Amino acid sequence: MIKTHRVSIITIGDELLIGQVTDSNSARMGQLLSEIGIEVSRKWCVGDEKGEILYAMQEAQVHSDLVLVTGGLGPTKDDITKTVMAEFFGVELQFSELAFQHLKSLLDKYKVEIREMHKHQCNLPSNVEILENKLGTAPGMWAEHQGVNWAFMPGVPYEMEYILQHEVIPKLKSLGYQSKYRQTTIQTAGIGESEIAHRIEPLLIQMPEYIKLAYLPGTAIVRLRLSGIHDEPAILEQEINWYTEIIIHELDTLVLGTGNDNLPKFLGRMLKENGFYIGTAESCTGGLMAHMITSNAGSSEYFKGSVVAYTKEIKQDTLGVNTTIIKQNGVVSEQTVMQMVEGLCQKLGVDLAIASSGIAGPDGGTEEVPVGTIWLAAGNRESTITQKLQLSRDRARNIERASVMGLLLARRWLLENVHFTNK
Amino acid sequence: MIKTHRVSIITIGDELLIGQVTDSNSARMGQLLSEIGIEVSRKWCVGDEKGEILYAMQEAQVHSDLVLVTGGLGPTKDDITKTVMAEFFGVELQFSELAFQHLKSLLDKYKVEIREMHKHQCNLPSNVEILENKLGTAPGMWAEHQGVNWAFMPGVPYEMEYILQHEVIPKLKSLGYQSKYRQTTIQTAGIGESEIAHRIEPLLIQMPEYIKLAYLPGTAIVRLRLSGIHDEPAILEQEINWYTEIIIHELDTLVLGTGNDNLPKFLGRMLKENGFYIGTAESCTGGLMAHMITSNAGSSEYFKGSVVAYTKEIKQDTLGVNTTIIKQNGVVSEQTVMQMVEGLCQKLGVDLAIASSGIAGPDGGTEEVPVGTIWLAAGNRESTITQKLQLSRDRARNIERASVMGLLLARRWLLENVHFTNK
Repeated sequence: MIKTHRVSIITIGDELLIGQVTDSNSARMGQLLSEIGIEVSRKWCVGDEKGEILYAMQEAQVHSDLVLVTGGLGPTKDDITKTVMAEFFGVELQFSELAFQHLKSLLDKYKVEIREMHKHQCNLPSNVEILENKLGTAPGMWAEHQGVNWAFMPGVPYEMEYILQHEVIPKLKSLGYQSKYRQTTIQTAGIGESEIAHRIEPLLIQMPEYIKLAYLPGTAIVRLRLSGIHDEPAILEQEINWYTEIIIHELDTLVLGTGNDNLPKFLGRMLKENGFYIGTAESCTGGLMAHMITSNAGSSEYFKGSVVAYTKEIKQDTLGVNTTIIKQNGVVSEQTVMQMVEGLCQKLGVDLAIASSGIAGPDGGTEEVPVGTIWLAAGNRESTITQKLQLSRDRARNIERASVMGLLLARRWLLENVHFTNK
Repeated sequence: MIKTHRVSIITIGDELLIGQVTDSNSARMGQLLSEIGIEVSRKWCVGDEKGEILYAMQEAQVHSDLVLVTGGLGPTKDDITKTVMAEFFGVELQFSELAFQHLKSLLDKYKVEIREMHKHQCNLPSNVEILENKLGTAPGMWAEHQGVNWAFMPGVPYEMEYILQHEVIPKLKSLGYQSKYRQTTIQTAGIGESEIAHRIEPLLIQMPEYIKLAYLPGTAIVRLRLSGIHDEPAILEQEINWYTEIIIHELDTLVLGTGNDNLPKFLGRMLKENGFYIGTAESCTGGLMAHMITSNAGSSEYFKGSVVAYTKEIKQDTLGVNTTIIKQNGVVSEQTVMQMVEGLCQKLGVDLAIASSGIAGPDGGTEEVPVGTIWLAAGNRESTITQKLQLSRDRARNIERASVMGLLLARRWLLENVHFTNK
């Protein structure tokens, strides 16, 4: 495979190694770079130690022509990246008046007293150019070293993202970083990885070798990525589009859509197109379905509200679930979630409701209703569809999976009950 | 610094490089290993390409005595880890009857037809020992190669975690992996990194050189980690405990607690100790506060329920916010969130409510109420405290930050209004 550029990422921090912090930074970098056609080829993650950082920098210098580094730029003693940079580049640390003026104006704004350690943060390797960080005190830095471009950013995610988007990416574009890489992602739900492979791979026999198909299984969703590198990107795009169409045609309603949108966004689009308002009545999912829906901008155009009903009393008093129904069937039952749907539609005036009730675990089950039993319902006051899940003892996974399945159930209800002009 | 063991992680997958998937696996590995005193020193992340995987394996072989690998073990064509392993170890791939029997029983259980690609999954390098994967079809593998121990696990997070906990960690213990590493984490809220440093560093002047202090800033929370390696772990522990006490004494109520518990867990403990039930009335936080609280097992002992009120009508009809109050002050106002607290306490019968109303963004603000303006309240029908946030245009960050601040506000209300016997 031809790589037009060799791009690497180094993340620095003991907290990443011992897992106190999940490295979302390098994922975000990968996303933003791939959006402009630059593919990351390697990542190193090392601790806050000189020898470790030097190792990663030396490896990256050999294996890359562009290296993005985050972490270790804060004001405190454990942040040693700049010292190591100076040694690696063979230069001195120098007090930067520019960096200090920026820091001063930021600290003044937040009425924070300037301390010695803040000044210390303005000692930068003498060969770097400052990448402005409007959101924090640690400046980003750019350096060119023996033919390799280096960008250094703080580890705070939004500061990293700000500098990457506003400083690094424009710089890369001006330096002519343009790859011959293209990709499309197809998102599917309700079908497993090997079943998809069984159905689509016979249709892809003639797909050119330079296009690769990858399966990315997630929670109840499998994403398929077609990607490739080619000297003539127009041809590449045409071929990828052709095979994307073939896959979508074969998998039909199992396809949520293309691109990187999340499930609630796909669902939101369907709701908006039909002028439907949704709401949720959540027991064991505890508000996650509402959070997933409202995490997307513009969700107020199709979401009205939710009731999280953790107790039996709230299910009865606020959602109007019948006491007898609960007595006869239990709180975790098909009848209960159906009444929760009805109650929510009436209470909040929504056109479509999703309800959940179950034992998220890890404890609390009975012989008849073991941990991981979760009932879902989606519908309105006229028609409701339900689904029973039998999941694991893993609470976080059960809550997440049930929420995703709840949103998928609402999607199914819409597909079955509403006419879609442009599916 | 002495490292008693050199432990590395390799994660494999194009999806990690282009950021379609965030690498939570290596963080979880780091957590579980550090719980038993094993510290990860390096991580490599490479794509699904032979040359790349070989590079990482060669580097890890030189720099480690234990290597954990995840990814590329699935049934589909892009999963090539096993082929590369065979080449690296200098062995052949062999059909494993043991792996096949396990796979068959799993597929039978889920009534999935056995396909050629499933059988293909049972071709393992001939030098490996199988690590049983009770949760999926891809077996884990263990190998010893020229003095280095290798463990291979699938990339699906819960399968990885299952194999790590039930197969790898017992194996490591039996092999005598025991480090001289110890650490403590102190969590603080309501104070910045440099302000903490200013207050505590003068108190730590005599702290032994082998103990390291790291600052881990998060959303409104800064964690401090004291860690070290010492030939006599008992002495190390004693020293770390001593300095932990000094820091806690200095920072007092700014300290949430020690260890890796999350904020809702700390809050939950306070609620439970006092027999308080909490609930949330959420507008712009859209259910995230409820989700954060209910993500902890046992939350039904102190959480009753929530109302997510995205529309004005739900605020009025379900939470009883006065129409005149909204007309005079706007939906995003101190008066509104105070009435939301009152309304929720009355409606759901909770002892303490948190309310939010604001413009999460990225659009929708006005000159008087710009994007990022968020009002929070916490309290009961007798007394309520409020807080106004002026955040960014970043929706996800605003929702997360406001939810964390909401929970912190509830904590402050408890500290101010309830007598704590064992703070």
